[in-house]
Amino acid sequence: MMRWAIGIDLGGTAIKAAIVCEERGILSDRTLLTEAASGSTGIVGQLVALVADLYPLGCETLDPANFAGVGVGAPGAVDAERGVLSYPPNLPGWGVVHLRDELQKRLLEKEELSIPVFLDNDANAAAFGEAFYGAGREFHDFFMVTLGTGVGGGIILNRKLYRGTHGTAGEIGFMIIDFDGPNLHASIRGTLESFIGKKGIVDLALGMIAATPSVSILGKLCDNDFTTLSPLHLERAALEGDELSLAVWKRVGSILGVGLANVAALMDIRKFVIGGGIAAAGELIFNPALDQLRCSTLPSMHEGLELVPALLGNQAGIYGAAALCFGEP
Amino acid sequence: MMRWAIGIDLGGTAIKAAIVCEERGILSDRTLLTEAASGSTGIVGQLVALVADLYPLGCETLDPANFAGVGVGAPGAVDAERGVLSYPPNLPGWGVVHLRDELQKRLLEKEELSIPVFLDNDANAAAFGEAFYGAGREFHDFFMVTLGTGVGGGIILNRKLYRGTHGTAGEIGFMIIDFDGPNLHASIRGTLESFIGKKGIVDLALGMIAATPSVSILGKLCDNDFTTLSPLHLERAALEGDELSLAVWKRVGSILGVGLANVAALMDIRKFVIGGGIAAAGELIFNPALDQLRCSTLPSMHEGLELVPALLGNQAGIYGAAALCFGEP
Repeated sequence: MMRWAIGIDLGGTAIKAAIVCEERGILSDRTLLTEAASGSTGIVGQLVALVADLYPLGCETLDPANFAGVGVGAPGAVDAERGVLSYPPNLPGWGVVHLRDELQKRLLEKEELSIPVFLDNDANAAAFGEAFYGAGREFHDFFMVTLGTGVGGGIILNRKLYRGTHGTAGEIGFMIIDFDGPNLHASIRGTLESFIGKKGIVDLALGMIAATPSVSILGKLCDNDFTTLSPLHLERAALEGDELSLAVWKRVGSILGVGLANVAALMDIRKFVIGGGIAAAGELIFNPALDQLRCSTLPSMHEGLELVPALLGNQAGIYGAAALCFGEP
Repeated sequence: MMRWAIGIDLGGTAIKAAIVCEERGILSDRTLLTEAASGSTGIVGQLVALVADLYPLGCETLDPANFAGVGVGAPGAVDAERGVLSYPPNLPGWGVVHLRDELQKRLLEKEELSIPVFLDNDANAAAFGEAFYGAGREFHDFFMVTLGTGVGGGIILNRKLYRGTHGTAGEIGFMIIDFDGPNLHASIRGTLESFIGKKGIVDLALGMIAATPSVSILGKLCDNDFTTLSPLHLERAALEGDELSLAVWKRVGSILGVGLANVAALMDIRKFVIGGGIAAAGELIFNPALDQLRCSTLPSMHEGLELVPALLGNQAGIYGAAALCFGEP
């Protein structure tokens, strides 16, 4: 029996969807720009259209009897049991939406498709994807950190998603590591995201540039318009040996290590999978992160500490969403 | 069937033990001073003597057929499955001890008692005690914080102890909340314990006294020998309205709130049971902690937030150790 599913990664900018075969991975995929302005009704319409496109395609080569359903990873707080999405940050005006039931209903009404739908948070879906198909395959328990515009997390315990009491577990971006400091993020002082989210990284670099303006090649890379400075510039400059950029990544890595140390102390999880666009900086981040993780934990917590890059890139969400339909990895 | 057990709380200063009846609680208890200098052999001898004293006493009124075993809560890292205690901080020279098997063996050899023994970390035992008999009875999931000389924690998920991959979960005292700050604790910078462990609290007060020496009644309370200043003095002074002491507790409470916010963000646990000697400061700590917990979390995490005092005082460990023998609460 070769099960298959449709995985959907619903983001504020794009909706990615794919036919995922449990054993062979992604067979065919689609990407649409999110019609955010059309609200939840419009976007559910986009999801229906994607399923209506991919499902018959899957049935051409795979057995419809082995179809496990449609899985959706969505931003914001998700009650996976009830299939409810609340206030997704990048989908304005959504409020509280019964996304699972709504999608099921419209698939039935519009396409006469009676299909089970599974819903979870996008960070959870990405962690589940890595657990099933990626860097977490060998780990019994691990914590996945996604470094991008924001800093997110997903937790796998005992090869299952750990969602917490209300489905909001894993919000490592909101972990406070500098409670008395100047940084604010969503009105909370000193969060991890305030330091190593995209804006935090750029602000750190700008501060260092202001202190020693002439030593970096960053100005050249962004045509001396520092309002356009991005982590990509910092990555390129660091690869060319730019001292200032190297110092930025070293600090970003060690602050990440502080956050991971807190996960290790609190949850006794010692395996970390690091993904997201910023994680492309690779060793620039990973080495100082692991060093700091060791410095910031008791020796009795060092056994088994491991930091590995995510393997599925921006497809982790699709894989994980599909895997929601398959159950435990 | 009225099950009963012997619960033992093994500490660096004292060993507390009791006959605990599953339904009626503690029936009889004993306390010995820990013969720390005698090493693990001597201390296991003390445990054997306590069991040899309490077990026949229990059998006089309770059915031996309903005896569930001996539970031990011990300081340091415990591998509950293997019954191994590693490097207990307050028991010098222990190293790695197979405490469960050792105790079972000597009970059999010396007293001809064949008794199942259960071992766990003392903070875990206290959390389990509160879950079974105390402030956590109504909570499905909760985090127990013990505020004493150190800051410890235990986690109940789904009415069971959550121990983590290696049995070290719950170490909230080692959570870093000020990674760039001056405080050190066990060579780690900015831990929660460095701020609100006993020493951190006293240091905070001494700093405030140095800044404004004449305004507090604390000098009078400790005979102007500030080397003897303790949280008890701060508690008494605060109850008499001493502004400086009130400010100390307010800051201690709000720093605790920062630590709890991190638990809420990471694990999505929103119920907190606060115990230990320092928690006797009560509302002085609880009110600012809850205020800060709300300020330091997203509004979407506020539903169900609750902070309650532990109910079992310094008997939580004995209760919990006995409850280890009964299984799930």
